[in-house]
Amino acid sequence: MQIAAEEMRQLVKDRLFLAFIRYKSMREQKTARCGRMEKKMKENKYDEESFFVKYSQMSRSVYGLQGAGEWSAFQKMMPDFTGKKVLDLGCGYGWHCAYAADCGAETVLGTDISEKMLAEAEKRNSRPCIQYQKIAMEDIELPEQSVDVVISSLAFHYVENLEEMIQKIFRWLSPGGDFVFSIEHPVFTAEGSQDWYYDKNGKILHFPVDNYYYEGKREAIFLGEKMTKYHRTMTTILGALLKNGFEIKQITEPQPPENMMDLPGMRDEMRRPMMLLVAAVKPAR
Amino acid sequence: MQIAAEEMRQLVKDRLFLAFIRYKSMREQKTARCGRMEKKMKENKYDEESFFVKYSQMSRSVYGLQGAGEWSAFQKMMPDFTGKKVLDLGCGYGWHCAYAADCGAETVLGTDISEKMLAEAEKRNSRPCIQYQKIAMEDIELPEQSVDVVISSLAFHYVENLEEMIQKIFRWLSPGGDFVFSIEHPVFTAEGSQDWYYDKNGKILHFPVDNYYYEGKREAIFLGEKMTKYHRTMTTILGALLKNGFEIKQITEPQPPENMMDLPGMRDEMRRPMMLLVAAVKPAR
Repeated sequence: MQIAAEEMRQLVKDRLFLAFIRYKSMREQKTARCGRMEKKMKENKYDEESFFVKYSQMSRSVYGLQGAGEWSAFQKMMPDFTGKKVLDLGCGYGWHCAYAADCGAETVLGTDISEKMLAEAEKRNSRPCIQYQKIAMEDIELPEQSVDVVISSLAFHYVENLEEMIQKIFRWLSPGGDFVFSIEHPVFTAEGSQDWYYDKNGKILHFPVDNYYYEGKREAIFLGEKMTKYHRTMTTILGALLKNGFEIKQITEPQPPENMMDLPGMRDEMRRPMMLLVAAVKPAR
Repeated sequence: MQIAAEEMRQLVKDRLFLAFIRYKSMREQKTARCGRMEKKMKENKYDEESFFVKYSQMSRSVYGLQGAGEWSAFQKMMPDFTGKKVLDLGCGYGWHCAYAADCGAETVLGTDISEKMLAEAEKRNSRPCIQYQKIAMEDIELPEQSVDVVISSLAFHYVENLEEMIQKIFRWLSPGGDFVFSIEHPVFTAEGSQDWYYDKNGKILHFPVDNYYYEGKREAIFLGEKMTKYHRTMTTILGALLKNGFEIKQITEPQPPENMMDLPGMRDEMRRPMMLLVAAVKPAR
């Protein structure tokens, strides 16, 4: 009987958790329709057809997590999902949501700004406990301590104010809660072009780093399309975690895995760090 | 009376601490003389006259901490030294030893492989509580939990096995003890030349990163002399701390300070990270 009551309380809490963000999203949309929305519009390149088609042909879109070079390293940093309430920021096709669900998560909320991505998520990675929601991560508001795990894969370099985002995540997490994310590496974002430096015969010479301490907007070419990303130093990324109360558990710059080394261009990825994976925890005390 | 007894115990402990390393150093020297020394000889470029003369003309050698671009950031990461037993690994001219002593440290042991550097330390930064000792940091052996603070300034990139060093430091530190160090940044050490990439007119284009995941020996030119340094990824440096029990408190890639911006070449230092500063703690529990 006591367990049933506890379960009921939990159920109400879970529904509240999902309902809250649903309500928030509807309100935003209404505000937007009324033309009173003052928040800056976030870039939503993934909903442009030409970009979306190219993205859908990437190995990580076709094969899911197994097609992502960093997954073998990222997977090792994932927490125990059993019975957890999980939030995925910038969930894309929903691969990580499905992974969390399959690892025993109680509820998973996958959020993304792109309608097209979420349609794919619904199609490919639907599970009874997963709820997908169209919302820019900067606009999410959740009750304090309402989430046990926050994950985010390669989305934070699109966010203008990362520290504010990290402060919110800290508030949303329950004590002892896990925060695991990947982001483009500061070495990869600093100069801006995100391309190798070549000799006159087109041979790679090295990877250029420039303007490292000048943080902010970069116009990079990704899949042949101009894309706005934000460069930040390692100091800023890790400092935002430490300053706001997180304890860092693991930091990994993933290397190309042995079994992908023969894919075109993969061996060159031993020459520069492209991504940064971080596992942090909100202290239990 | 009780205080006097406690003081006496402390004094004995301190003397033991200093005597231990003195004994160890003598034994090593004796072993070396007998030709039975199997340990690899460590490079000791700082004792070569031509290098030493050039080093002595650097701003940090002439002006001490105030002449070091990273000091304003590094100083903010220093712990409270009051009543602490401090160990400085690769102390050079002894500026950090003197700083710790002047901030109230009880004993300071400054170690360096270079006799010339230690002679300068004795001349410029002598204090009653400071003991300077000629020994390669890899050869130091100390009792467990015998030190309260370990500092090291720009010396770890000369060490071949950094993880082993970090394991030892963890053992030497008392619970709650602080570990603060600076090291050349992985971006700065990766490619090897440690030089900008220039156009044909000698104008800086960018800083080259290459072979990032291929860790190990690099032959860099420093002050016009060939020097062996060791490149490691950020993953390896920070991972060695986290894996071995340290908690990371702060990570800083120091920017050139405003008041040095007009020194030759300093403004270009906004374009690449050259150093990494880390503050860590051995958990008290």
